[in-house]
Amino acid sequence: MLLFGSRAAGGAGTDFGHNKKMERSDTRRVMGHEAIGVVEDVGADVRTIKRGDFVIMPFAFSDGTCVFCHDGLQTSCIHGGFFGTTDVAGAQAEAVRIPLADGTLFPLRAHVDDALMPSLLTLSDVMGTGHHAAVISRVTPGKSAAVVGDGAVGLCGVIAAKRLGAEQIIILGRHADRIALARDFGATDVVSERGDAAVERVRELTGDQGVHSVLECVGLEQAMNTAISIARPGGAVGRVGVPQEQTIPGSEPAFYNNVMVGGGVAPVRAYIEELLPDVLEGKIQPGRVFDRIVGLDGVPDGYRAMNDREAIKVMVTP
Amino acid sequence: MLLFGSRAAGGAGTDFGHNKKMERSDTRRVMGHEAIGVVEDVGADVRTIKRGDFVIMPFAFSDGTCVFCHDGLQTSCIHGGFFGTTDVAGAQAEAVRIPLADGTLFPLRAHVDDALMPSLLTLSDVMGTGHHAAVISRVTPGKSAAVVGDGAVGLCGVIAAKRLGAEQIIILGRHADRIALARDFGATDVVSERGDAAVERVRELTGDQGVHSVLECVGLEQAMNTAISIARPGGAVGRVGVPQEQTIPGSEPAFYNNVMVGGGVAPVRAYIEELLPDVLEGKIQPGRVFDRIVGLDGVPDGYRAMNDREAIKVMVTP
Repeated sequence: MLLFGSRAAGGAGTDFGHNKKMERSDTRRVMGHEAIGVVEDVGADVRTIKRGDFVIMPFAFSDGTCVFCHDGLQTSCIHGGFFGTTDVAGAQAEAVRIPLADGTLFPLRAHVDDALMPSLLTLSDVMGTGHHAAVISRVTPGKSAAVVGDGAVGLCGVIAAKRLGAEQIIILGRHADRIALARDFGATDVVSERGDAAVERVRELTGDQGVHSVLECVGLEQAMNTAISIARPGGAVGRVGVPQEQTIPGSEPAFYNNVMVGGGVAPVRAYIEELLPDVLEGKIQPGRVFDRIVGLDGVPDGYRAMNDREAIKVMVTP
Repeated sequence: MLLFGSRAAGGAGTDFGHNKKMERSDTRRVMGHEAIGVVEDVGADVRTIKRGDFVIMPFAFSDGTCVFCHDGLQTSCIHGGFFGTTDVAGAQAEAVRIPLADGTLFPLRAHVDDALMPSLLTLSDVMGTGHHAAVISRVTPGKSAAVVGDGAVGLCGVIAAKRLGAEQIIILGRHADRIALARDFGATDVVSERGDAAVERVRELTGDQGVHSVLECVGLEQAMNTAISIARPGGAVGRVGVPQEQTIPGSEPAFYNNVMVGGGVAPVRAYIEELLPDVLEGKIQPGRVFDRIVGLDGVPDGYRAMNDREAIKVMVTP
């Protein structure tokens, strides 16, 4: 275990989902599963992480040694779990205790410019999650990709699809500020329609074939239906939007078109090493998804602003 | 187009499913989508297939030239379709007309021993379909695989999993004759339980981790639920059982365990080239799934025998 002071923590749609659904309770729960910061103290069993290290905290903790961690699937770690639950406190606090610190944290021992902090913070969740959607949906140089959803994860999905070489990147979304950012990140086409109209529009944009890779970054039934319907035969859907239903729609179209549906809770710990150099060199700027900064006492209003679509994503500086 | 006399045709579970559900109709429909035979005549536009060729007829016809055929996904051919529908007659007949013969048929120009005919016939569907499930579920040398379903496709799935190097092959099924054949084909473990008990048994057999690859060869909701539940985190389900539901169950376990669900109508045309040498050399013997032979007038009783689980799969010799 170890304690670290959060330099910055993020307010995520996933917190937000919980927040909307969460019933009033007497049980105290510290939210926030995305953070970067400096190590304040380490426990006796911690071997590699040291006091003073600047670290990225992935949203899941993991031992780094089990069979699933070895597979690069730290979110299925046998001894792992998630920050911001009723069991393990989250990072919207002055300090956070990190279980399994050696496996969980990613230390950066070089000096890092303050301007990069927001982008580094996204490696604890949204950038790694968008990248997961791109990897699972098999984004390939020169091929087409579509991103369903223009939230922070969807926007990072655009960055990931561009970074992996997709030639055509279609974003499905309808918020002007987010769409503008998506275009900056590399989106080549925008589809603001929904449902059947969205499917028709994507078909028009792809010579009636659909897209090779679909990054599903919403989690609602309609979004998944759209994702499967716009995939090209033999294509793939990488879903990272937390599913709100017990079933996946579109069983028949997926079957008859051989569309693969994969993805899930992103093992962002596994992706930091690959994504970090591009962040440090400024090649990708996922930190631009943070368009508001609050202190700890501004957190409730930060959630409100995200709910009202006033802010894409809020950064908390304790 | 071309005419060829079927040397042998198969009665498939997919026909059979139709047969059970099909309502009485005045529209004549020739069933049967699996066949091998000798070309009797060719149309003016046929370029490569010649009279006298011995050919394998995949269950789908395809032009062999469109973008999806080039991708090896002939079942999504832009000009293609399926045999045994109300539009295109099937192969349980003295002769069958083949659309797009050059793209559709696979000619064998060497002499072939009669003993190999049943195995060659499986390349028109069930062996290629079992192989598709294995490919999509990413069967890997030294890893574990499970086959859900002990019908002809499931049994061919066992062959495919063994052929691709799976070290542990668990078959989920409960018919003694089929299980015996599965063991001959390479199954290392048998799970005859269903539902939660089956999931528990597979977990016991895999050190509580689940299997890397699941070949779903049934298509019913319970089978898919089981398939997702027995997959190891990060594993994959290749489904080839024709889905009987509009939705895929298990959205949440698939998401939280990052289990991929893929597959669909198998592009068996693409697989003949890879599988044929093993059939010709006798390395695999998928023809053993045929345990009854009938003439054309024996077809109704053949379907009855499959329905009553008296026969695994029936070969028709017109």
